[in-house]
Amino acid sequence: MKAAVFHAKEDLRIEEVDEPSPGPGQVKLRNAYAGICGSDLHVYYSPEAAGLDFDHPHPVTGSSLPQILGHEFSGTVVEVGEGVTDVSEGDRVAVWPIYYCGECAACRKGMFNVCQKIGFHGLTSHGGGMAEYTTVDASKLHVLPENVDLRLGALVEPMAVAWHAVDRSGIQPGQRALIAGAGPIGIGVWFALRARGIETVIVSEPSEVRRNAIQGVGAELLVDPASEDLSARVAELTDGDGVDVAFDAAGVGVAITSALANLTPGGKVVVVALHEKPMQFLPTQLVMSETEIGGTLGYLQADFDAVIAAMAGGKYDPTGWVDVVGLDEVTDAFGRLRAGRGMKVLVSSSGE
Amino acid sequence: MKAAVFHAKEDLRIEEVDEPSPGPGQVKLRNAYAGICGSDLHVYYSPEAAGLDFDHPHPVTGSSLPQILGHEFSGTVVEVGEGVTDVSEGDRVAVWPIYYCGECAACRKGMFNVCQKIGFHGLTSHGGGMAEYTTVDASKLHVLPENVDLRLGALVEPMAVAWHAVDRSGIQPGQRALIAGAGPIGIGVWFALRARGIETVIVSEPSEVRRNAIQGVGAELLVDPASEDLSARVAELTDGDGVDVAFDAAGVGVAITSALANLTPGGKVVVVALHEKPMQFLPTQLVMSETEIGGTLGYLQADFDAVIAAMAGGKYDPTGWVDVVGLDEVTDAFGRLRAGRGMKVLVSSSGE
Repeated sequence: MKAAVFHAKEDLRIEEVDEPSPGPGQVKLRNAYAGICGSDLHVYYSPEAAGLDFDHPHPVTGSSLPQILGHEFSGTVVEVGEGVTDVSEGDRVAVWPIYYCGECAACRKGMFNVCQKIGFHGLTSHGGGMAEYTTVDASKLHVLPENVDLRLGALVEPMAVAWHAVDRSGIQPGQRALIAGAGPIGIGVWFALRARGIETVIVSEPSEVRRNAIQGVGAELLVDPASEDLSARVAELTDGDGVDVAFDAAGVGVAITSALANLTPGGKVVVVALHEKPMQFLPTQLVMSETEIGGTLGYLQADFDAVIAAMAGGKYDPTGWVDVVGLDEVTDAFGRLRAGRGMKVLVSSSGE
Repeated sequence: MKAAVFHAKEDLRIEEVDEPSPGPGQVKLRNAYAGICGSDLHVYYSPEAAGLDFDHPHPVTGSSLPQILGHEFSGTVVEVGEGVTDVSEGDRVAVWPIYYCGECAACRKGMFNVCQKIGFHGLTSHGGGMAEYTTVDASKLHVLPENVDLRLGALVEPMAVAWHAVDRSGIQPGQRALIAGAGPIGIGVWFALRARGIETVIVSEPSEVRRNAIQGVGAELLVDPASEDLSARVAELTDGDGVDVAFDAAGVGVAITSALANLTPGGKVVVVALHEKPMQFLPTQLVMSETEIGGTLGYLQADFDAVIAAMAGGKYDPTGWVDVVGLDEVTDAFGRLRAGRGMKVLVSSSGE
């Protein structure tokens, strides 16, 4: 079968590999779509900085390079292994791609998403979504309802990152939110907030392309922080109170600094983006208004369920911010995304 | 009557002033003890950096300099004004010293402790605890039970700062805590944690004097971070898991950095100290283990009630960390505290 295989820095090959066969408890999927994630770009352009140890077999999965990419993906069950009863051939599914050790402090609390030895199908495992087929444990599958197509199915993963962040923020209907950054995760936060009944959602994004994208799916309270006074706009839109929760989906220090400045007393900044650089920060700023900063990472299986249910309820719209390319075009798509062109790109493994 | 009156930077005078008389809804107190707080040192040595605007009348209380100091204080009711029915002559009380605007975003949420125009009796009001008498609204009084003496009564305020921090931390019995800094607030956090049933409380404090002080009231898990490996000790004392909550009662960046490094996944750092300097901070550190940093400030009246109840239950011990001086010795005591000698000093206004 054809697969996008990562061999080394800037060495991704579309090549023929053996078709996998499902072991006990596993299924074989005919992959449909796999999203390209910021992590994929990291792995491709600067694997040494991606936080993954490619020099040793993964401590949970045992895998080493070369690695088929694609951890945000959907597919159709084409074969079930021994003992699999929950899913059947023909089921369309999204895959919760996490492998966890089950023993660390995080796993013992059920926080598998921050397992100290976390692995991902499509990053550090025996297969991935950017191939015609893959095999995964049946326990990782989330069946898609009839009205959720395979393209949306591949968006479950990034949307679950955002859903998880909104869930952990504790935001309640009637409260107000700010999203800094309208890339795919910022858009996901917007969908999750709206799905949970949050009415006032202010979006701060310096890129006109991204402002237009989020406006296209329904956002109305848009601010360009480069040309407008964000604090003045937040004050105007919140009766002078500030927002209850601000989401940093931008990954730059200034997003957090301005998020903190725009919180209501007792409010919270949720960092969902990864930051490459440290920032300057005066802890007393948290003290004077009893505010908080918390980080969130990834997702649990419950987040996949919640996103799929919200998708079935019509709460997600991929119009205007999702492109589809073929497996042969992956490297080109990496280049475009790295250059800041495009937002979410899905790789069609089946050529659809 | 005799009072400690702040006139200007490094100009505190023990002088004769008129005895106050209670207006409607007020009581007159014969002050017993008033603690010297870090804020008092700030006001005395660098009023321009104390965050108080002494150039204009206070927006809530209308007061200006000169100012009688003493906002951590206890006393005995000697006269009640018109309409006061809740307290009587002879009642021994602690005073919740906060004045708030009642209109800002914080006040509308009941977070009077972070009111945007907050004032304090003994810092920005018509009187204070470092005088023979003062008058306050009866609504600010918390009557002391028979077995809580007036010396403990003056400690209710700083202990309420710590209680409030522990309360907001959300820590639960069975969880583990780290306290960075064993000054009066760190000691208060220790008492509050123990009163709430937290068994494992690790204290990190570089000063031997302060380690001895907190050991004297019962702390057993002491670490000198200057000579010991704090992370190794925390790992050893928490089965490798880290602590659920770390309290920064030190006010230096390194306390937060090492607190973050010693949290269990999902854990929290609570900043209760004021920091004078910004720190370097990589937000991704919060993301990778879904941890949080939050600030807490001051106290609500409920915190006063809780501390007094815990004092009545024998949960607080002033042995070894509290000194008493006379009103004439206030300036000397400021100098000693500023030089890092001594911990909590109570000023006896009645010469007891």
